[in-house]
Amino acid sequence: MSKKPLILVTNDDGVTAPGLRKLIDIMRNLGDVVVIASETAMSGMAHAVTIRTPLMPRLIKEEAGYKEFVTNGTPTDNVKLGKHRLLNRTPDLVVSGINHGSNASINIIYSGTMAAVLEAAIDGIPAIGFSLMDYMPDADFSHVDDWIVKITEKVLDEGLPEGVGLNVNIPGISDEPIKGIKVVKQAKARWVEEFEERKDPYGRTYYWLGGHFVNGDHRTETDEKVLADNYISVVPVKFDFTAHEYLNSFKFD
Amino acid sequence: MSKKPLILVTNDDGVTAPGLRKLIDIMRNLGDVVVIASETAMSGMAHAVTIRTPLMPRLIKEEAGYKEFVTNGTPTDNVKLGKHRLLNRTPDLVVSGINHGSNASINIIYSGTMAAVLEAAIDGIPAIGFSLMDYMPDADFSHVDDWIVKITEKVLDEGLPEGVGLNVNIPGISDEPIKGIKVVKQAKARWVEEFEERKDPYGRTYYWLGGHFVNGDHRTETDEKVLADNYISVVPVKFDFTAHEYLNSFKFD
Repeated sequence: MSKKPLILVTNDDGVTAPGLRKLIDIMRNLGDVVVIASETAMSGMAHAVTIRTPLMPRLIKEEAGYKEFVTNGTPTDNVKLGKHRLLNRTPDLVVSGINHGSNASINIIYSGTMAAVLEAAIDGIPAIGFSLMDYMPDADFSHVDDWIVKITEKVLDEGLPEGVGLNVNIPGISDEPIKGIKVVKQAKARWVEEFEERKDPYGRTYYWLGGHFVNGDHRTETDEKVLADNYISVVPVKFDFTAHEYLNSFKFD
Repeated sequence: MSKKPLILVTNDDGVTAPGLRKLIDIMRNLGDVVVIASETAMSGMAHAVTIRTPLMPRLIKEEAGYKEFVTNGTPTDNVKLGKHRLLNRTPDLVVSGINHGSNASINIIYSGTMAAVLEAAIDGIPAIGFSLMDYMPDADFSHVDDWIVKITEKVLDEGLPEGVGLNVNIPGISDEPIKGIKVVKQAKARWVEEFEERKDPYGRTYYWLGGHFVNGDHRTETDEKVLADNYISVVPVKFDFTAHEYLNSFKFD
């Protein structure tokens, strides 16, 4: 009989988020699970890493095949802590989420959920981020189980190329069942910010960030497009910001 | 006579950092300057964005062709505030830095300096991040002026392709003058973390993040390689995490 895989679970909505609890439930059927989650929500923390203050993880639950830690760190910190201190061996898989809200297209750059995935991928650990296209705290996750099992088992069986993780976004629940899974590119969409201007009780001006999402990318094989058509989008991701196509055209004398 | 370019200056080491003051001095010779900098150091904040608390910028200095704001936000917030609220028109250029310490190779993913650059590039604004390979607060910036002027003037004159910014790293001062500028790729290097374990005054275990840098990338045309040879590295960067080379080989039934 083969040894059970060791799966590290984290997220960026904090330890109490329903999306995390759902992902834990699913993963406990697939392997031994260690959860390392932040005490508070870390949405929008991107790849932030804690270097000026110490990290204090606490083991809050332990039973056969299961450990759960909470920390004062970011999702990136949590993966680092797992790899180097809290796990007794390198995990076979890191999963992050299920995020309450989209991490498709531009959203990945602000995402703590996906930072955890990239952090693992950089170290050669297969990693998957799961996000639901519904940012509400009480989002309905009842339709996601079989899809997440399917994608996770594929990665556990086949692995991923060195340095590559998966960014998986799942349509919110609707009357129409999800049509399937498509492997696609990150869309070139963006947020157009609107800072709302207000006055505090002392008359000082402050701004609160809002905005609306604009997808100007009309290609068919993008995450935004297939999500709009009620497919799950899977974008293989890696960490390389180099604009390769531009390397040869930019020269200094 | 042509109108002066409008240059937005930010950084991630905070408003008092010598690297920022040096960059401001250089840019004031090249155009009208608006500084939007964080009150406190934001190193390691990556692309973090403030969504749960309000932002309160304060104008602390104003003279002909110059304004300086401090904020309680991250570098990404500062660029967003500039674009949407604090500037009366879209800037011609965003510059970020001069960072105290390398943003070459893996370091870009944790970098607030480079997050500001990517944030601008996403909105089609030419942007350059400057970093010195010396993380000390009293780092010597006396050898950088002419190089920064050369790179900045090129970008002001020629622009950059839509969505592309520059990640510029400058060797620390040494007896040997800098040899020149090379346009290269981001090296596949990484940090190997070492969490130091300590006890707090109440006996609780905590960890402090340290680590050492490992460059396993032996290609010649990378930022790490040319920096080691005392060249300035320029990596054209853009925001797309898609692992394009892997798109066609990963399939679901």
